[in-house]
Amino acid sequence: MDPDLRRRLEAVVGAAHVLDDPDTRASYETDWTRRFSGPAACVVRPASAAEVAGVLQICRAAGIAVVPQGGNTGLVGGSVPRAGEAVLSLRRLDAIEDFDEVAGEVTVGAGVTLERLQEHVRAAGWDVGVDLASRASATIGGMVATNAGGVRVIRFGPMRHQLIGIEAVLADGAILRRLPGLLKDNTGYDLPGLLAGSEGTLAVITRVRLRLVPLRPARAVALLGLPSLDAALQVVRAVRRAAPGLEAAEVFFPEGLDLVLRHTHLAPPFPRPYPCYLLLECAGPADPAPALAAALEPVADPAATLLATDRADRDRLWACRERHTEAISAEGIPHKLDVTLPADRLAAFEPAVRARLAAVRPAARPILFGHAGDGNLHVNILGLDPDDDAADGAVLELVASFGGSISAEHGIGIAKKPWLSLTRSPADISAMRAIKRALDPAGILNPGVIFDLEPPAPGVAEPPGRV
Amino acid sequence: MDPDLRRRLEAVVGAAHVLDDPDTRASYETDWTRRFSGPAACVVRPASAAEVAGVLQICRAAGIAVVPQGGNTGLVGGSVPRAGEAVLSLRRLDAIEDFDEVAGEVTVGAGVTLERLQEHVRAAGWDVGVDLASRASATIGGMVATNAGGVRVIRFGPMRHQLIGIEAVLADGAILRRLPGLLKDNTGYDLPGLLAGSEGTLAVITRVRLRLVPLRPARAVALLGLPSLDAALQVVRAVRRAAPGLEAAEVFFPEGLDLVLRHTHLAPPFPRPYPCYLLLECAGPADPAPALAAALEPVADPAATLLATDRADRDRLWACRERHTEAISAEGIPHKLDVTLPADRLAAFEPAVRARLAAVRPAARPILFGHAGDGNLHVNILGLDPDDDAADGAVLELVASFGGSISAEHGIGIAKKPWLSLTRSPADISAMRAIKRALDPAGILNPGVIFDLEPPAPGVAEPPGRV
Repeated sequence: MDPDLRRRLEAVVGAAHVLDDPDTRASYETDWTRRFSGPAACVVRPASAAEVAGVLQICRAAGIAVVPQGGNTGLVGGSVPRAGEAVLSLRRLDAIEDFDEVAGEVTVGAGVTLERLQEHVRAAGWDVGVDLASRASATIGGMVATNAGGVRVIRFGPMRHQLIGIEAVLADGAILRRLPGLLKDNTGYDLPGLLAGSEGTLAVITRVRLRLVPLRPARAVALLGLPSLDAALQVVRAVRRAAPGLEAAEVFFPEGLDLVLRHTHLAPPFPRPYPCYLLLECAGPADPAPALAAALEPVADPAATLLATDRADRDRLWACRERHTEAISAEGIPHKLDVTLPADRLAAFEPAVRARLAAVRPAARPILFGHAGDGNLHVNILGLDPDDDAADGAVLELVASFGGSISAEHGIGIAKKPWLSLTRSPADISAMRAIKRALDPAGILNPGVIFDLEPPAPGVAEPPGRV
Repeated sequence: MDPDLRRRLEAVVGAAHVLDDPDTRASYETDWTRRFSGPAACVVRPASAAEVAGVLQICRAAGIAVVPQGGNTGLVGGSVPRAGEAVLSLRRLDAIEDFDEVAGEVTVGAGVTLERLQEHVRAAGWDVGVDLASRASATIGGMVATNAGGVRVIRFGPMRHQLIGIEAVLADGAILRRLPGLLKDNTGYDLPGLLAGSEGTLAVITRVRLRLVPLRPARAVALLGLPSLDAALQVVRAVRRAAPGLEAAEVFFPEGLDLVLRHTHLAPPFPRPYPCYLLLECAGPADPAPALAAALEPVADPAATLLATDRADRDRLWACRERHTEAISAEGIPHKLDVTLPADRLAAFEPAVRARLAAVRPAARPILFGHAGDGNLHVNILGLDPDDDAADGAVLELVASFGGSISAEHGIGIAKKPWLSLTRSPADISAMRAIKRALDPAGILNPGVIFDLEPPAPGVAEPPGRV
């Protein structure tokens, strides 16, 4: 890299934190999926908002774009460089501060992992409202920047709803800082909520204040075998109204459970297979099992219902669902889609997407699972060439025709950009571009993520970046 | 008004819906508080987003600014004209559509009142997550535009958190429309969340899709007499962790209860007065009274605790809190402030604000009440000249020094604009101005609300507009 640029960056973050040898850069240049990768000019590792501001000012003056990066666990290519950008790693911003154990609020550096924060606050009887499988690596900053969801959205909402304060650095180096943690604050535009989910394109998030949720020590998990997804959704609705503290409602199908059983040492949960499986978890201050059992009684077949309250039994039931991702990866390299359907269209979408895939790519092996309470289905597809987008496009077009969203949790990144206009209108995209130009006129923050600053020429669609 | 302008507006909305005679205009020109008022060029009453778009295009071309208005129940002067703007009344957008009684979602025209929506969805076992005292007049569009809060924020969050789809018209007439109602949708910037709370300055909200919450038929209300606000907050924390379904935690003080008792026919709830009162409500599918009683047992004095489960008894306890506003208005014209404090500063703020008021304006009679679970205190002040802002400024400066917010629920409007910079930094305000310019470059949407498009000259502060 340019020695003068290096010298200026080192003056801000220290010589040890401007990295440009290829071996060190490598882990920052390729994402967790190994599907997205690109060359970085360098990796810069600031330790404070002021250092982030200094780095952004230098990069802006030098005309170098910046890719903010947390735990690099994203699935849409939004946290790795595409074309010689500087990677701005936020992992050194790892302080947990001002934990109010009475009110349940905490200020968290962008680089703190979800798991570390969970351990920290659980010791005092609190919990983070969002939980997801990549907790050991995913950072709070990245989770806010992508508005992460996970398995508890049905009860506590996504990261955006946990946010009660933010510190972030704008492209010009100005620092937005409001961290008192106010549950109600109607004083102008909701900048924290706007930055949440903006995937690093509007500002670099450096610290957040989060509201916590009380730890719910008593838990009950039910696993049900059911004749269809429609039947599963009916059970979810019944339980949602009758059982307090429903915080997970996960569905999966025999093709996924077969993969899990084949690649793990788990025993089959039931003596026979069912067309659809539903996992429910209720939690609260007091044992939720009686209310859950009572809610299930009128709607579930006792022979196809397992109820677990102690930890080991609950974990065994959860493993049938949580080990899907690992089992799918052991079987091959999947195409990963993550879609939401309107509540009343989800049941009809499931056979429709299988039929569409069979028509477009007969070799495709779909493995579906997801969050039934949110209409959110993860569509994993094995048996496809990694560079063959035809199935992805066919699925996303089907989602759009059902009135759904092409990305429920993962974001757009660069992976889903070609299909953004399927579910965001020209007026929507134009308004987003106007906001991007207003806050980052030079376009140095994560360029090319979500949309390009200039609309593409008519008829031109850009393929997602690839290794 | 200009006959050519009238003709063009009539071509869009019909002759019956362009109103400019002074008698008809009057009810649109003065707000509910009677404190804020200004002349309107005319009142235009469109019946659809397309008509709103047409009106905005005509007004923009004619250089006439527009003040969107719903139920006109705002408390900060943001919904009435200041200087000859056109009032855009949204009340004819009053359709309730696509009620999904299974999933609990509904599409609501901006002009539907909260009360009408409540009646509509409650008949099918659902409820709106937000409730507030002005429900008979407040419209859903206005409640979203101001991100209304109310008494259930502690459980369900403010209006922004109920929003799962929006239709809104930008200043140039472009219509943003995404109403499928997707609980998860990470496809770019959260435009619905940005418009919520933007007080009509970025777009005109015409329809929204809301997620509903299950009706909680079983309810328990407790009223406690306590030695201090600090003691009340300790009870709230204990109940929050131990009793499921806490959905209101309201505090008030003897000066407010005295006013209520004097201006209504209510009997005193306790044989003796207490320094602080706390009203708690829990609700759920099953009777929450046993859990509430058990949670209160270790922290409350039985002699100073009333517990009610049947409707009439609950209403009697609620009246002690809900009739504050009416009793205060019967006593005089109050200055109304609405502030949030960080959770750990609320108890210290209460004596501090009383002391500050006594020092600044010895005649001031503060009546405090609020939402203890959110740190939100309504500071009503009697005994002041309506045009004397010294007490307001002193209170808001104290709030800022405690790290709080100068507006918890009401918004900034024009009433709180002089103090915006107390709790929003120059970087914040500059980012808000950039977003405003990006979406409304001509500045025709509710100009002068929240902030002025151009920063004032150094040293110049603008007083709030007044009747």
